[in-house]
Amino acid sequence: MRIAVVAPSCPLKREAADAVQAIVTARGDCELVVHPQCFLTEGHFAGPDSARLAALREVMADASVEAVWFARGGYGSNRIAEAALTDLPAAARGKLYMGYSDAGFLLAGMHKAGLDVAWGPMPQDVVRDGGDVAVQRALDWMVRRDASTLEGELQGPAMAFNLTVLSNLLGTPLEPDFTGVDLLIEEVSEHLYSTDRTMFHLASSASIRRAARLRLGRVGDILPNDVEFGTDEVAIFEDWCRRSGIAYGGRADIGHDARNKVVPFQRETR
Amino acid sequence: MRIAVVAPSCPLKREAADAVQAIVTARGDCELVVHPQCFLTEGHFAGPDSARLAALREVMADASVEAVWFARGGYGSNRIAEAALTDLPAAARGKLYMGYSDAGFLLAGMHKAGLDVAWGPMPQDVVRDGGDVAVQRALDWMVRRDASTLEGELQGPAMAFNLTVLSNLLGTPLEPDFTGVDLLIEEVSEHLYSTDRTMFHLASSASIRRAARLRLGRVGDILPNDVEFGTDEVAIFEDWCRRSGIAYGGRADIGHDARNKVVPFQRETR
Repeated sequence: MRIAVVAPSCPLKREAADAVQAIVTARGDCELVVHPQCFLTEGHFAGPDSARLAALREVMADASVEAVWFARGGYGSNRIAEAALTDLPAAARGKLYMGYSDAGFLLAGMHKAGLDVAWGPMPQDVVRDGGDVAVQRALDWMVRRDASTLEGELQGPAMAFNLTVLSNLLGTPLEPDFTGVDLLIEEVSEHLYSTDRTMFHLASSASIRRAARLRLGRVGDILPNDVEFGTDEVAIFEDWCRRSGIAYGGRADIGHDARNKVVPFQRETR
Repeated sequence: MRIAVVAPSCPLKREAADAVQAIVTARGDCELVVHPQCFLTEGHFAGPDSARLAALREVMADASVEAVWFARGGYGSNRIAEAALTDLPAAARGKLYMGYSDAGFLLAGMHKAGLDVAWGPMPQDVVRDGGDVAVQRALDWMVRRDASTLEGELQGPAMAFNLTVLSNLLGTPLEPDFTGVDLLIEEVSEHLYSTDRTMFHLASSASIRRAARLRLGRVGDILPNDVEFGTDEVAIFEDWCRRSGIAYGGRADIGHDARNKVVPFQRETR
């Protein structure tokens, strides 16, 4: 299997690319093609919008590529997502797109456009403590659809998103249909007051209220409030589910960490 | 004129209340009634939702109150805004509601409900450097509709919002109709990458695209990016206006500072 790595938001570290390449070589069941665009830098981004878009469009249109693996999160895939989905080449279909965090903008828009996407670990995760396991998990899904990589409690069609990313794609052309979806949500590096505010936004959205249930992944690296917020992320999540009438499905095994599991967006079709 | 102060989000500092009371006494043209709820604390908030809602409902229903002045921003007015607007008492109409920042959730919902609202300085601003001038400006608008307090370039119906607050009320029951509105937006204490992401959300919203133009207030206390973002807030704003076809109307004289001007939401009716 041929897997192409592109970076629609921030640059990939060279040492991460090398470490993932070593893992792939040791496995011997796939080939990794890291696009040189991954190492471009322009301010915050892995090159200008035009370069990130061109690299993504190139691998989407390449019939020899069976999976497109987003290099890392950060910020910026939303800036090219709509353009990436314009006039889709035939070769864009029939391959898998995988990533999480900021890549959720692409997962959402691609899923909406009928492409096959999955939430899951990314190459840059290899630099995390225990990150090699996360990378192997992603490869096990991409290469052989190993069911042991999946989040363990998925029910019916599922989606997974970072909370802030999901909030920022509501009402945009990237927003998919959440009707009946097992919706897994995680967050990282935000204040709890901000998480409460973003959950207000989500829970007050008619489209989110059509989800089958919401489940709470890990909320990592919570920034300190100047005054203690007073509750925790579970109470916040339960509160907004209760207020909005959305079913709360308990915890989910996803997050910005090496334990992050795989969530294919179209599980019922497998 | 009788002005009631309530705190729908975070607690008011005692010294701020005292300083504003002293200003009001010296003016002699109005009476300030600071609701005791302003000094409650529960975690992050000025008392539990129930207490903040009850105080707000009380002053809204009080026919002797001619203006309701939100004590300060922070976070939390969205948690009570919908309930505050249910079964509006007759006395809620015919008075002015004033504040900014987090209070924008209330301004939005109240304006949508036909109440008379204005963006402008709040009591807690008195503790800012030069904050007494801001407080006098707010009082000059509330008490005598002094046109010199207004943002200087308002065209037709106008609204003003904090960017993050506006993003989080899109698609919720609080969202007003932006059609033909001169929309002024400011931001504070965010990373530029986050501002870019939030502007994507705004500019991709069909309802925001109905505004007459967007204008950029001050973007204060920008949090450092680990890598320099690469552009500034003006470039971000211009970029998203250009991408979305919304007219960019230049800078606006609002912000989280003592210079913050008044923006009545229904100016054409005056």
